[in-house]
Amino acid sequence: MAQPHFTLYSHKFGPNGWKVAIVLEELGLEYESLYLDFQKQEQKSPEHLKHNPNGRIPTLIDHKNNDFAIWESDAILLYLVEKYDPEGKISVTDFQEKMQLLQWLFFQASGQGPYFGQVGYFKFLHHEPLPGAIERYQKEMMRVFGVLESVLSEREWLVGNKFTIADLSFIPWNIVAVDKPGLLKDYEGFHGLEQDFPAVSRWHNAILVRPTVKKVYEVKDQVNAEGH
Amino acid sequence: MAQPHFTLYSHKFGPNGWKVAIVLEELGLEYESLYLDFQKQEQKSPEHLKHNPNGRIPTLIDHKNNDFAIWESDAILLYLVEKYDPEGKISVTDFQEKMQLLQWLFFQASGQGPYFGQVGYFKFLHHEPLPGAIERYQKEMMRVFGVLESVLSEREWLVGNKFTIADLSFIPWNIVAVDKPGLLKDYEGFHGLEQDFPAVSRWHNAILVRPTVKKVYEVKDQVNAEGH
Repeated sequence: MAQPHFTLYSHKFGPNGWKVAIVLEELGLEYESLYLDFQKQEQKSPEHLKHNPNGRIPTLIDHKNNDFAIWESDAILLYLVEKYDPEGKISVTDFQEKMQLLQWLFFQASGQGPYFGQVGYFKFLHHEPLPGAIERYQKEMMRVFGVLESVLSEREWLVGNKFTIADLSFIPWNIVAVDKPGLLKDYEGFHGLEQDFPAVSRWHNAILVRPTVKKVYEVKDQVNAEGH
Repeated sequence: MAQPHFTLYSHKFGPNGWKVAIVLEELGLEYESLYLDFQKQEQKSPEHLKHNPNGRIPTLIDHKNNDFAIWESDAILLYLVEKYDPEGKISVTDFQEKMQLLQWLFFQASGQGPYFGQVGYFKFLHHEPLPGAIERYQKEMMRVFGVLESVLSEREWLVGNKFTIADLSFIPWNIVAVDKPGLLKDYEGFHGLEQDFPAVSRWHNAILVRPTVKKVYEVKDQVNAEGH
């Protein structure tokens, strides 16, 4: 097989790699995904650290740009649209809208990802039960959904009246939150996305039906079924 | 007083507003800071939410650009350099370096800020003692410093062989970590920044001595002394 345009270092469970795969699909770019085995600490291997000193996924290598390496999922999305989406198919071209797109990506990266992730961590990975910590972060999840609801009840998409990487960036953690494994399922104040946050629910479903999102999540199911 | 170029919604303690003030100083831009009173929930007031639906600080209003409002501290830094630093005094102009600058800003926003912040939260604000949570996040602080050390032991600055907003973005939380209140002070594996992370320490001190950083932190001390 000829070398693909990109190599994507990813993980079969972790949410952030799939986000990059979806954008590669949206832009019709060819890539090979390598799913690192965290139990073997492959993300901390010298080969991977050479590309990404943070030792996490995703990491993207652009073989048609001198093996340029970039990490942090939202920075990868921006690299891809800046270089391969000049017409703004899934981005924006107006200066102020670009700044708003950055703003929402930073809100996703700093406000959604880490806090949603903490619920998962304290539910499934921490060595002792800490219900106080789980509750803190579930409350923060509700707050984040509330912020999105206040905006999406007044407009269809986050930026520029169109679907962009800003909307897409929220998808993997929102799936983990309300679909599987359902990080909010046992939270007393939560009655389902549609009931509590109808505008977020409408937006979430409008992204889920995109062919690229469906395709990538089918790949995810396959990879996991194969015990890759 | 004539209307300043910018209004900066900030907070007298919280780290992220000072970062924006430093960049405004670096670029010689005039601004007025409004320190919101969180006990009065001023950050959730209709007036502030109109500009920033996230209800947090910082929020920047550019009065010379139709009162354009932007929030998320690192998005604000990018707005300021994109619009007011065309020569790249504290930024970069090369495309790939710009992408690397984004990457480090996302690492700061998603990897440093939230986790350093959790140590502060569980030490000073949570209603019950949860040493397991504090330890988890102190360990993560050490990991983040380790990532920075691996990079800064091989080069002077994060991006483009020069001081940029990428370096600066780490300053407020690093001060909180090692200076005051010293979030790592009681962590068993920590012996001081200089001993454990000498390259990070060199870099941190090189940023601290910038006149703009000194000036802004003097203002912070004044604002707090006045009980503003």
